[in-house]
Amino acid sequence: MKDFKSNTARRDFLKMAALSSLPLVVPGTGLLKPKESYAQDDDRSVNFVYDGTTDFLDPERYIKKLLKVNATANIQPDFYGLGGTTQRLEREFAKITGKEKAIYLPSGTMANQLAIRLLNDGRTKAMVPENSHIYRDEADSAQAVHNMRLIALGKDKDYFDLKELKASIAYHKSGEYIDSGLGTVVIENPVRRANGAIVPLDELKAISKYCRNEGYRLHLDGARLHIASAYTGVDIAEYAALFDTVYISLYKYLNAAGGAMLCGDASVIDKVGSYIKILGGTAFQSWTNTAMALHYLNGIDDRWKEVVRSGNTLISELNKSDQVSLTKVKNGSNLYGLKLTNTDFAKLQRSLSSDYNMMLAGPDGNRVIRFAINESLLHRDLDTIINAWETCLKAAKA
Amino acid sequence: MKDFKSNTARRDFLKMAALSSLPLVVPGTGLLKPKESYAQDDDRSVNFVYDGTTDFLDPERYIKKLLKVNATANIQPDFYGLGGTTQRLEREFAKITGKEKAIYLPSGTMANQLAIRLLNDGRTKAMVPENSHIYRDEADSAQAVHNMRLIALGKDKDYFDLKELKASIAYHKSGEYIDSGLGTVVIENPVRRANGAIVPLDELKAISKYCRNEGYRLHLDGARLHIASAYTGVDIAEYAALFDTVYISLYKYLNAAGGAMLCGDASVIDKVGSYIKILGGTAFQSWTNTAMALHYLNGIDDRWKEVVRSGNTLISELNKSDQVSLTKVKNGSNLYGLKLTNTDFAKLQRSLSSDYNMMLAGPDGNRVIRFAINESLLHRDLDTIINAWETCLKAAKA
Amino acid sequence: MKDFKSNTARRDFLKMAALSSLPLVVPGTGLLKPKESYAQDDDRSVNFVYDGTTDFLDPERYIKKLLKVNATANIQPDFYGLGGTTQRLEREFAKITGKEKAIYLPSGTMANQLAIRLLNDGRTKAMVPENSHIYRDEADSAQAVHNMRLIALGKDKDYFDLKELKASIAYHKSGEYIDSGLGTVVIENPVRRANGAIVPLDELKAISKYCRNEGYRLHLDGARLHIASAYTGVDIAEYAALFDTVYISLYKYLNAAGGAMLCGDASVIDKVGSYIKILGGTAFQSWTNTAMALHYLNGIDDRWKEVVRSGNTLISELNKSDQVSLTKVKNGSNLYGLKLTNTDFAKLQRSLSSDYNMMLAGPDGNRVIRFAINESLLHRDLDTIINAWETCLKAAKA
Amino acid sequence: MKDFKSNTARRDFLKMAALSSLPLVVPGTGLLKPKESYAQDDDRSVNFVYDGTTDFLDPERYIKKLLKVNATANIQPDFYGLGGTTQRLEREFAKITGKEKAIYLPSGTMANQLAIRLLNDGRTKAMVPENSHIYRDEADSAQAVHNMRLIALGKDKDYFDLKELKASIAYHKSGEYIDSGLGTVVIENPVRRANGAIVPLDELKAISKYCRNEGYRLHLDGARLHIASAYTGVDIAEYAALFDTVYISLYKYLNAAGGAMLCGDASVIDKVGSYIKILGGTAFQSWTNTAMALHYLNGIDDRWKEVVRSGNTLISELNKSDQVSLTKVKNGSNLYGLKLTNTDFAKLQRSLSSDYNMMLAGPDGNRVIRFAINESLLHRDLDTIINAWETCLKAAKA
Repeated sequence: MKDFKSNTARRDFLKMAALSSLPLVVPGTGLLKPKESYAQDDDRSVNFVYDGTTDFLDPERYIKKLLKVNATANIQPDFYGLGGTTQRLEREFAKITGKEKAIYLPSGTMANQLAIRLLNDGRTKAMVPENSHIYRDEADSAQAVHNMRLIALGKDKDYFDLKELKASIAYHKSGEYIDSGLGTVVIENPVRRANGAIVPLDELKAISKYCRNEGYRLHLDGARLHIASAYTGVDIAEYAALFDTVYISLYKYLNAAGGAMLCGDASVIDKVGSYIKILGGTAFQSWTNTAMALHYLNGIDDRWKEVVRSGNTLISELNKSDQVSLTKVKNGSNLYGLKLTNTDFAKLQRSLSSDYNMMLAGPDGNRVIRFAINESLLHRDLDTIINAWETCLKAAKA
Repeated sequence: MKDFKSNTARRDFLKMAALSSLPLVVPGTGLLKPKESYAQDDDRSVNFVYDGTTDFLDPERYIKKLLKVNATANIQPDFYGLGGTTQRLEREFAKITGKEKAIYLPSGTMANQLAIRLLNDGRTKAMVPENSHIYRDEADSAQAVHNMRLIALGKDKDYFDLKELKASIAYHKSGEYIDSGLGTVVIENPVRRANGAIVPLDELKAISKYCRNEGYRLHLDGARLHIASAYTGVDIAEYAALFDTVYISLYKYLNAAGGAMLCGDASVIDKVGSYIKILGGTAFQSWTNTAMALHYLNGIDDRWKEVVRSGNTLISELNKSDQVSLTKVKNGSNLYGLKLTNTDFAKLQRSLSSDYNMMLAGPDGNRVIRFAINESLLHRDLDTIINAWETCLKAAKA
Repeated sequence: MKDFKSNTARRDFLKMAALSSLPLVVPGTGLLKPKESYAQDDDRSVNFVYDGTTDFLDPERYIKKLLKVNATANIQPDFYGLGGTTQRLEREFAKITGKEKAIYLPSGTMANQLAIRLLNDGRTKAMVPENSHIYRDEADSAQAVHNMRLIALGKDKDYFDLKELKASIAYHKSGEYIDSGLGTVVIENPVRRANGAIVPLDELKAISKYCRNEGYRLHLDGARLHIASAYTGVDIAEYAALFDTVYISLYKYLNAAGGAMLCGDASVIDKVGSYIKILGGTAFQSWTNTAMALHYLNGIDDRWKEVVRSGNTLISELNKSDQVSLTKVKNGSNLYGLKLTNTDFAKLQRSLSSDYNMMLAGPDGNRVIRFAINESLLHRDLDTIINAWETCLKAAKA
Repeated sequence: MKDFKSNTARRDFLKMAALSSLPLVVPGTGLLKPKESYAQDDDRSVNFVYDGTTDFLDPERYIKKLLKVNATANIQPDFYGLGGTTQRLEREFAKITGKEKAIYLPSGTMANQLAIRLLNDGRTKAMVPENSHIYRDEADSAQAVHNMRLIALGKDKDYFDLKELKASIAYHKSGEYIDSGLGTVVIENPVRRANGAIVPLDELKAISKYCRNEGYRLHLDGARLHIASAYTGVDIAEYAALFDTVYISLYKYLNAAGGAMLCGDASVIDKVGSYIKILGGTAFQSWTNTAMALHYLNGIDDRWKEVVRSGNTLISELNKSDQVSLTKVKNGSNLYGLKLTNTDFAKLQRSLSSDYNMMLAGPDGNRVIRFAINESLLHRDLDTIINAWETCLKAAKA
């Protein structure tokens, strides 16, 4: 673990910038200042890189945004996670998920792990997607801290189905010492490592029904659940009703500088606070995150309806160009793969950025550019965005 | 643990307000707006309640302060604890403590617990002060998460001495199954639960020397170490040199909204990052805390020299009044006990607040008011502060 | 921990032999063969050293005893702790303690720790006697494996009383972050580190009543509970009724080569088996221990009534000699302190051993010999034992 | 976990009896007494069911065997795992494995888990065979107690090879947060769940060489290692030299009533003792197991050479019958699958048992009988065994 920090640094940066060669997203150097009018206006910046806006890349913008938020929302301080705007956000999340309670945590890792631990209630096994954040991005927290064995399902698939779940339960029941010991079944939706694929509602319902009949508990890693909801039209509460607990991130599309929300029955959520403290996760104040998330949560459903509509139009318009091919996976959501033909990528990326304050990630090893639709699309009139793309594509034609 | 949240809420509020009956510090209601000029100026507010300023009570003030900080310091974002202003703060802390490395953590609890766990390296025992944050305010984290037994020393004392430490080591060595298994000896300095008492340097040196001879590791909970340093004149680095690891808080006198710093050898600190992640403590961004702490760290030694000087003058002047008795414990630092004679406390508190924007805590069960000296004393000319007190005391004379 | 094995070896040997200089108890060398008739008969050996017989010192004797036991009891094998004689012993223990279930475990440490862990049900705190096996002889298992903080009561006393318990609960409730988190209160009875002192029944009742009113669970470390019962006349079931779980050792006075029994409600005991397995404590077969314990359990109450009666007579007779002073602690049970006057100890010990096959421990640093009454007293007619002592004392007169 | 005990009971019994319908192996009922001379002589009983003799099924036989062992070996007691015959066995195991030290543990689960935990030294990941005891038969001990994540390799294979190991390491290195965190690679040999298949020496060498180059530690679950050795001719020490630690069972072919041995460098093994204690696995005495194992260890290599030779002849002779087909897996060892043609199984099993004191397991769901070669084959002249089979087969011909 010696090289943990430096390795992580490199890896995370690559993840964040989606293999971009773009100089302006290098953390620590600040954004290059664009020369044109749109480009100068940070509030009107558009990115095709992240699931949210890019406020998190520029502290000054984040601070100014908080100041604006405060002007109308009258931010109130919380103390050790209690009271103030943080509590307001918790209540709002309980409401939109239809759960009794919600609680703020410092990270999605802690939210996921504590949810499963509490649902498991002493049992050792939880079944999780092989490609999930819980299985592969939480540093073996389940096993190393929370005394649980994760059994991965759905290898090489976007998600596992009920048939596979049943087969795995039977396999472990018949062949192991303790009669399964299974406590919780976990689903991630949408699936980050599967290019944002959304697990179909019918599959979720079937799994939920089966698990409830069998007495297994259910946790949803819904870090980006509003995005699934926006693309399927299925209400957040309808998704949440299929699970005992639901985690939603505050820093993906809600644009906070960090934080997570866990929602569920009072009998579970009321136990979370002391575990956060025991783990050392109780921050003195969290309103710098929760005030921002609350701001973006307000009206999110309507805005993302518009994001989806605008996004679909944009994709359709761009695909008319013979330089562009934009596709997404089956059951996909806001993430596309962009392939360019006869185009000087570096030139395209540069002119989008400097002339129009629009950010595009760099290509991966297969020359595919991860292309994300997000709320920044609403920062400008859709026609101006489409025109900007056309201009830049033309100029970059090879 | 059912009532954890509500109980904690009540308790923490009481702690924070030092049993005050003062309406203006009720979290969630905002500060009453004072009528006079000083009183209207938040940047010139003075409090005798906390170890730092009161920016944390008012998000608007905190945000505006960050904006000012950014204007000169050019705040840079960090990602998952890496890079940017957070890294700058880590380097600064390494420098001032004379350690190879420093790392940001979300809480003092996590900093203390991971320090001891890593120093203990598989051994089960650590010796800690009975009145320490580690023993009594970290929710049994050592035992419940980090597999360690804490043995408490110094019951009913401000701090334990070398003699008691040796006796306890001998007691456990001779009378228990495993030959002691002791890994780490912990000291807190200054001691919060002992009214800010400072452990004398000679005692620290004697304990450090003994432990190093015997092969025990040493951790310092120096949450408020600069305050000890300001009152003793002993350099931070001189304190730190006696220990393997040192934790310093970012939200007591450094006025951040949260966070902690752990400093030590690279061999220890390089392992901390992965444990933060495993525990679920890795926040997406932390610059909202670290930028504020870095701002206040800059020039802190000179400012606190002035705080101590002004504080001493203030105490001495106030004690001239026959209404006032201000005393502190042996080896005390910035905390005093204030007793009032022939004085209408509620009136005094109210006029200090509304006329002068000066905050005073309420009395405890023994009618003693916890009176703290802190950097807010520099917000105004000392004479004006003394005059304000005299005026208010006179008016409140019973 | 490097020297763990060698240190433990030395320490445990010393404990077992009670600081004896007696050559015949050195493990690994076998017993010196005595020259006289009683002395030659291992089945009639008498010891004043242990709480049980000395079969465990001589494998040959142990094996022959098992063969005799089998002749009448028809020992049946168990597999992985299930079935056979082990199950019969479990049922017998459930019956005598008046509990729903009992389960065999490989050690008292595992029995105690799992009892508290299961009773605590996620809470972090348990209150235990400072001088208890659980606190000082179980290698920090509670903290290092079972995620519990033990709070020790009764320092420098034989046992803690209800008043101290209440004070400690209040102290922790008011002064710590989580509202106590106390799950279980533990009592050891009789108390090994207090020279076998027995906690008075009224004190047990008061503590039990209080804890049940307050919702705290109760565990009894009754490793030697039958000895308490024999001296107080209080039935095992009456003691057990005051607690949720009771542990009783199989290798103290029940003379097995190892093992422990935990008794309690089915809701607790049914969970123990899987934890034994998870900890790696599930032995393939355990009947070599349980068959011996079952043999000695049969009729134990009547035999120990006789042991107490004979023991009292013996003590009283020996105390008539001006060479002998035998005393025990207040509320004491089967353990006495023997002081000799004008007596050549080595000569006395040697002649008791070689002429009469009677074993006496050596003196401790204060020249006090730990003198234990146990079932081996019934191996011979009491008069012959008294006569043997008189003869040997006379011969050893200095 | 409610049904843990009853389920386990059933499952373990089935395992042990290999799905037999044979009444005489029902635990707790004792053996039916056979009518013929061989049949009456327990010391000459032959079984084709287990890896060792059947002394463990009959306590009386076990006790008498111990008495015989004692007559020549002079069994010495151990105390809390130290000294006596247990120590002699540890030294013997260190010698035959060529390791610095060996230590007795109460179970293979504890031996395996502690080995990996200590080798992992804080790292979270270990790679293990999917079909291994460690992965599937140790009740999730790695994750629930020892803070480790097990990554399973070789699904649907007898064992994994170096290529798969490398691929898995690369997969986890590139795709997860912490740069692998892999500590230990584990191999089981022979593989119980693969019908006793032996991992080829060249594969072991290749994996060992690779791991040592990369800095990964190696543990061998060699519960039945002597059986592999007997069939391959590869010395125990040659196998052991490829690994850091090796576990060997005492109750499979060494016929003890329980226990395990872990062998390795002093730097690892010296730490094991305190962990056994912390886990609650320190038995008072263990000589009832270790004396038996030591007895059977003495001369084992020569005896098993003879077992293999006789076994091969027996298999070859039996296969000459048109009623019999005996086959084993590729790289198999002492386990065969027996299929019968035109044979009344119940009659065959009964006559083998009652007329010749020879035990045969019952068929599984596919009508295959697990047929094991073991040391009981040496209890009689091979010709008499072959003749007995011929007689019984003839009589059972359908």
